[in-house]
Amino acid sequence: MSDQEQTPQTSAATAEDERDDAYELDRNAVARIIHAVDNDDRAQLIEEMEPLHPADIADLLEQVSAFDRRRVIALYGDEFDGDILSELDESIREEVLGYLSPEVLAVAVRELDSDDVVDLVEDLEDDQQNAILEVLEDSDRIAVRQSLNYPEYSAGRLMQREFVMAPEHWNVGEAIDFMRNQQDLPEQFYHIMLVDPKLHPVGNVTLGKLMSSRREVMLSSLVEETFHVIPVTQYEGDVAYAFNQYHLISAPVVDENERLVGVITIDDAMAVLDEEHEEDILRLAGVGEGGLNDNFIDTTKQRFPWLAVNLVTAILASLVIAQFEATIAQFVALAVLMPIVASMGGNAGTQSLTVSVRSIATRDLTGSNVWRVIRREVTVGLINGLIFAVVMGVIGVVWFGSPALGYVIGAAMVINLVVAGLAGTGIPVLLEKAGIDPALASGAFVTTVTDIVGFLAFLGLAALFLL
Amino acid sequence: MSDQEQTPQTSAATAEDERDDAYELDRNAVARIIHAVDNDDRAQLIEEMEPLHPADIADLLEQVSAFDRRRVIALYGDEFDGDILSELDESIREEVLGYLSPEVLAVAVRELDSDDVVDLVEDLEDDQQNAILEVLEDSDRIAVRQSLNYPEYSAGRLMQREFVMAPEHWNVGEAIDFMRNQQDLPEQFYHIMLVDPKLHPVGNVTLGKLMSSRREVMLSSLVEETFHVIPVTQYEGDVAYAFNQYHLISAPVVDENERLVGVITIDDAMAVLDEEHEEDILRLAGVGEGGLNDNFIDTTKQRFPWLAVNLVTAILASLVIAQFEATIAQFVALAVLMPIVASMGGNAGTQSLTVSVRSIATRDLTGSNVWRVIRREVTVGLINGLIFAVVMGVIGVVWFGSPALGYVIGAAMVINLVVAGLAGTGIPVLLEKAGIDPALASGAFVTTVTDIVGFLAFLGLAALFLL
Repeated sequence: MSDQEQTPQTSAATAEDERDDAYELDRNAVARIIHAVDNDDRAQLIEEMEPLHPADIADLLEQVSAFDRRRVIALYGDEFDGDILSELDESIREEVLGYLSPEVLAVAVRELDSDDVVDLVEDLEDDQQNAILEVLEDSDRIAVRQSLNYPEYSAGRLMQREFVMAPEHWNVGEAIDFMRNQQDLPEQFYHIMLVDPKLHPVGNVTLGKLMSSRREVMLSSLVEETFHVIPVTQYEGDVAYAFNQYHLISAPVVDENERLVGVITIDDAMAVLDEEHEEDILRLAGVGEGGLNDNFIDTTKQRFPWLAVNLVTAILASLVIAQFEATIAQFVALAVLMPIVASMGGNAGTQSLTVSVRSIATRDLTGSNVWRVIRREVTVGLINGLIFAVVMGVIGVVWFGSPALGYVIGAAMVINLVVAGLAGTGIPVLLEKAGIDPALASGAFVTTVTDIVGFLAFLGLAALFLL
Repeated sequence: MSDQEQTPQTSAATAEDERDDAYELDRNAVARIIHAVDNDDRAQLIEEMEPLHPADIADLLEQVSAFDRRRVIALYGDEFDGDILSELDESIREEVLGYLSPEVLAVAVRELDSDDVVDLVEDLEDDQQNAILEVLEDSDRIAVRQSLNYPEYSAGRLMQREFVMAPEHWNVGEAIDFMRNQQDLPEQFYHIMLVDPKLHPVGNVTLGKLMSSRREVMLSSLVEETFHVIPVTQYEGDVAYAFNQYHLISAPVVDENERLVGVITIDDAMAVLDEEHEEDILRLAGVGEGGLNDNFIDTTKQRFPWLAVNLVTAILASLVIAQFEATIAQFVALAVLMPIVASMGGNAGTQSLTVSVRSIATRDLTGSNVWRVIRREVTVGLINGLIFAVVMGVIGVVWFGSPALGYVIGAAMVINLVVAGLAGTGIPVLLEKAGIDPALASGAFVTTVTDIVGFLAFLGLAALFLL
């Protein structure tokens, strides 16, 4: 990439320069809304909220304090609609549900599609869940309960049960007439699913193709080239991967008998892809779950376990250092320089492991290429190690006037960067094979290895050659 | 999240258990393909490739060695189609283009939509770019050149120029008749864009709504509630954000005169969202650009600058340690324990900065809540710091038999974890304000701060109270 970016482009400027502040909630708008609430001015509040999309209102509620949140919702009253609830971050959903009067809540929830209700209630406590389900019409409540019977994070929870299907032997005219006579077509749909007599999906036809074809053309001659069927128990992350990999717009979901039970559309898949990335990035940083809207108690609890793991690994590294107390006492320069070796190894290891974890997530790192990738990472570690070995060797000589110290730190640097490349690729791959999420656990393992190897190589070589 | 996950769910199992290996390229299939190539058996190769989606064939070409890649493409010959090129990772596209005969390349490129051609050629050298553009039909070549005139990473590069528009005063019947008489409707489209006489987009109607409405209904009464217009120079990452935030399926793109010039669809926005995440995650780890398919020389170059930055910051930390050489010489236990304080601070800082960088990217961290978030992070640092202070204090006493050492390490731990919370949030926010991508630069700054504060607090307090 970096090389190619330097070649002359047809247009020199890049649009990245314009990214600032696009789509950021206007701080003045937020201030005006809080001002309206301060003055108990409902008309003003509604006027300020009117241009905002429900997703933006949800963002606003997330960004103000809990105190203001409660006041905004109280004053907004029955203007509060269901889409705002759907858009709210899970961490404050329960809180906001508590602020809504039963009447407002009932109206808001009844507005939602069944898949949005599922998303809304699936993480709630049983009593709060039941309270919401009670306000639904019978048919909707049954649909939601059926979805909740599918495993969490499965395609069954993600799909919508409203879709349009047609027998595979129909022609365009029959399909168009059928749809034009239907009273309740889904709000959003992009394909007609063709099914055989046993309700197995056999293909899909875009509405655009239908529009532009003559009435007597068989639907089966218009099916899309890429047709991808999703099992109802499939993990939602895999569903999102399939949409992204195969450029799907909507896909049929089938039960264990291969019968069509629902449809997943790309907008839901995109939301899942976004969540999966969020999860990966937070797990890599040792945050696990948790976001910006959690209170300090939840946040402390989320952060604590990873810091505790890190404390154990840091103590392991210290135990290595402790073996060389006598050496350090004789040559204090070692204490000054040893964190450099460990730190460089930790950083190189993090680079390797991040590329590996991402590549495992995108199915790009597989049995077919793992050895080639490991060989590459080790080679990269060796080359960068040699370069930094020379740099540090010179620094060792100049700073401490000891060529031997220069050799030792240089050798330790090479060893640690090679090990970093090996561990940074090997550990995520092994964790994945063991069924452990590599994003979650690789960091602790890799930095433990690079810390221990870094201190051991540097202090060990020093003990051998400097004293 | 973690609390809620422990509450009883309607279904206990989660679909995450099933995620293993879904959509991973079958290693045996790869082996059979290479076997076919070894035997020069073209029929066998074509039979093995036939069930694979172009995206999977691209993955396969990425995962085999360069030697096998060349042989597979040579044997596959004119079966190679344009979609494979589109799906290929940028790092090997140029290489693969070099393997294709001019005839195969010409056919492959002519199959592609103009937006895919833009994506294919935009990063190529001028001569290779021209070679590809020459094989296009005149109208396509002009369309591609027009797109290349828009800035890199802009909506103009992302949009397709094929779309369906209708005057705002038409009714359903007129729109349907118009479409049924059109010869060349776009391959994929989901909305009809309504425009005023000046070609300004004023609303969009889904094909589903059109299908289910009577012929005399005005199009303007069927427009979608959410209508979002994208400026042609907008950064593609912001476009992807808008699609995800507002659940758009397709959106009109307008030029500086607000005239409709193209349409972006959600599948392209999803691909951009995926790339943006990839970029963030790699930048946070100090990898910058680069992926699994780069060779070791490119990889070494990509990794080197970040390691060099880290070397400088590590040396800064060492200079702090060097100020306390006399102290360490008197009390070597300090050398053993000091990496623990720095390491805990580095990890806590990384936790805070990752949450902050993500929240800035999703526009959830803004002027409205930045102080509240900083206060939370500092509080979390204080609480976790106090807990680990007690733990380390006890360890200091038990291990080295020195209560004073216990107090010192405990106090240093509290100081460093509070500073980590402050720096982990404050530094990304300041970098963003200064127009620097916080994902790119925060890590180095934050760990420098936590290293320096960690060593300074621990060794400084030790010098004051232990000697």
